[in-house]
Amino acid sequence: MNTPSNERLARAALTRLFEPSDLVGLALIRAAGPVDALCVATGQVRGGARLQQELSEVLAESGMTGRRALLGESLLRWQPRVADLAPERDLETITRLGGTLLIPGDDLWPRSLEDLQLGTPVALWARGNPSAGLPPHVKTVAVVGSRDSTNYGASMTGDLSAALVERGYTVMSGGAYGIDAQAHRAALAVATAETVPTVAVLAGGLDRYYPAGNEDLLRAVGEQGLLLAEVPPGVSPTRWRFLQRNRLIAAMSVAVVVVEARWRSGALNTAHHAAGLGRAVGAVPGSVYSVNSAGCHRLLRDAGATCVTDAAEIIELATPIGGATVEVAGTTRDDAQPAVYDGLCVEDLLLLDALPVRACSTREKLASVAGLSQQGVRIGLARLELAGLAIKTENDQWRKSPPATRK
Amino acid sequence: MNTPSNERLARAALTRLFEPSDLVGLALIRAAGPVDALCVATGQVRGGARLQQELSEVLAESGMTGRRALLGESLLRWQPRVADLAPERDLETITRLGGTLLIPGDDLWPRSLEDLQLGTPVALWARGNPSAGLPPHVKTVAVVGSRDSTNYGASMTGDLSAALVERGYTVMSGGAYGIDAQAHRAALAVATAETVPTVAVLAGGLDRYYPAGNEDLLRAVGEQGLLLAEVPPGVSPTRWRFLQRNRLIAAMSVAVVVVEARWRSGALNTAHHAAGLGRAVGAVPGSVYSVNSAGCHRLLRDAGATCVTDAAEIIELATPIGGATVEVAGTTRDDAQPAVYDGLCVEDLLLLDALPVRACSTREKLASVAGLSQQGVRIGLARLELAGLAIKTENDQWRKSPPATRK
Repeated sequence: MNTPSNERLARAALTRLFEPSDLVGLALIRAAGPVDALCVATGQVRGGARLQQELSEVLAESGMTGRRALLGESLLRWQPRVADLAPERDLETITRLGGTLLIPGDDLWPRSLEDLQLGTPVALWARGNPSAGLPPHVKTVAVVGSRDSTNYGASMTGDLSAALVERGYTVMSGGAYGIDAQAHRAALAVATAETVPTVAVLAGGLDRYYPAGNEDLLRAVGEQGLLLAEVPPGVSPTRWRFLQRNRLIAAMSVAVVVVEARWRSGALNTAHHAAGLGRAVGAVPGSVYSVNSAGCHRLLRDAGATCVTDAAEIIELATPIGGATVEVAGTTRDDAQPAVYDGLCVEDLLLLDALPVRACSTREKLASVAGLSQQGVRIGLARLELAGLAIKTENDQWRKSPPATRK
Repeated sequence: MNTPSNERLARAALTRLFEPSDLVGLALIRAAGPVDALCVATGQVRGGARLQQELSEVLAESGMTGRRALLGESLLRWQPRVADLAPERDLETITRLGGTLLIPGDDLWPRSLEDLQLGTPVALWARGNPSAGLPPHVKTVAVVGSRDSTNYGASMTGDLSAALVERGYTVMSGGAYGIDAQAHRAALAVATAETVPTVAVLAGGLDRYYPAGNEDLLRAVGEQGLLLAEVPPGVSPTRWRFLQRNRLIAAMSVAVVVVEARWRSGALNTAHHAAGLGRAVGAVPGSVYSVNSAGCHRLLRDAGATCVTDAAEIIELATPIGGATVEVAGTTRDDAQPAVYDGLCVEDLLLLDALPVRACSTREKLASVAGLSQQGVRIGLARLELAGLAIKTENDQWRKSPPATRK
């Protein structure tokens, strides 16, 4: 392996040398810079006392004290992979696939990732059309959930994702079966040419589509949107990488919405990352009898997630100051028509209750039944008549208006 | 009408004279006591300047200033009902029905009602077996919801109510169709002789069963549990009385659980009363596509209600300090079996990910794939072997245990 002469090459190599969230490795980069870090990590250069000291300081700043000795252990951990390093080849591969490597400082580098602090990834492999612009995290909503989704979950995911894209948001997810796939699919279905409708953050290298059953979908995501990964081409997804991938989804989104999740679910992991980063967390409620909603209800109970039932509520969640889309909330409800009785004062409500529907009633009788004074009945009847709720018949008797004639 | 000579008779009369939550009437009772209040309210005694002054003070204490002049208006409002007063007859009626009138100071008077402050009812008409003991509010949970419930709502209500009664709680509701009826029914079905399984608080007089379609059910509630009302026999339920009845349900319960409710629903009114009184509010989640769950989701979003999915969660909500039934939570989940991987450290998780399922791998290969040192692999494999997760084959090669053999 040649020593890479520049930062991009070094970072490309380090994404293969370090597992995601290898905190000692990430601290080494902070302390020494990526080029020197690679030299130290591969054993070509010995870390001196001063580097050891800086490394300890970086780790201490991240709350990990007493890890000074770990560089030695870490070198043993990194050593078996040194022979596999081939950053030029990896960069050629991603270029051949029409992609690129994003590193901190690039125009397209997602600044939101820096909220991960020491956990900020070394670099980000990207495939698709990054130059179309990686959407800012404030316009990105993560829609995630279990792989074994129900029809209910799939349908909710489709409704929410499509509506989010139609309102100018990018839907981010993990490319998995179930909720993730449905989120990407619905986003693509309503996409227009100008926007990045959806981004899939994968746990393995971008040279293959994983899971294989989602190959066509992920290819389409890579054509109309973006595929991102922290690991280089050729690296397979593992449980650890899935869990670490979740932190990237959380960091690059303004809100994480869990549509369906079991009591234990990777989607809850993403939600907890989001909460830890101060991102909003939404959970879609569902039947208590569905084990696929148990994780969502758990988030609502235990994790302070917000109950979300439509895109407007998600956008409200994603808009810190609120107000952005208040006009939408509540206007699409099936039964949100204002009740006939809205705005009536207590006395008029009592009087309306006292009015018979078919027979008629005198004012004296109404006063007794409603518990109002004669004068109160007189004034109230005038108001109700004006509102189309009461009708005067012959002999100064009164009854309720039939519903059809109410204004 | 004879002037009643004692407080019980006076309160009986006043429940007919005043609408529920007639704040001027209630203030008059506070200022003058019930016997004198009746004399004033019926116009037999003129309220002097001192009474006016006291009345103003009581109203001011309740935040209603500038209502001094209202006694005059209120007298006009009460006057039409004076001729109907017949407290002896009402008391005879309730006795004939096997019931009684509960007034403040009675052993069985629900002290929790006093949390309503000025809104505390004048008296409470009771039917059933009050001497069996009105359950304390800390052992009473209100289970309420819409009249047009779905199968889902009925089923959830049945599960929750039965489980609450089995754990020694009384289920309170409003005797209406739908969720209310199902709550009473399920409570009765699991009742034992010693307890009051369920209490129905009705908006009309206890001489009739309303709604008529629930007659058999309400009769059974009156036999095994209790029927309560703020209004005397013969008084019909009205919208106002329904709304005021809801405050009684909230006050006499430690928690109000809304199982199903539309975007606008009387059940939400009960929940808001509960929140105002500092009672816990629980909402059962449901399908976003069900308009009958929209009110529950609204409570979760806007009113700080807690998402509840089983009786244990309701009891946790009803137990201010918590801890009472923590052992129940989480143990009845369908998929709460601890995951195989629980308790593994990060290194072991990485190693487990690297182990092939069918083929075998050397320790050197595992070190590279997992990103661990040779020593880390050696120690980790020993731990995984002990946990039944890794198997050593010939030639010191390793693979994952097949799922069936895992401990």
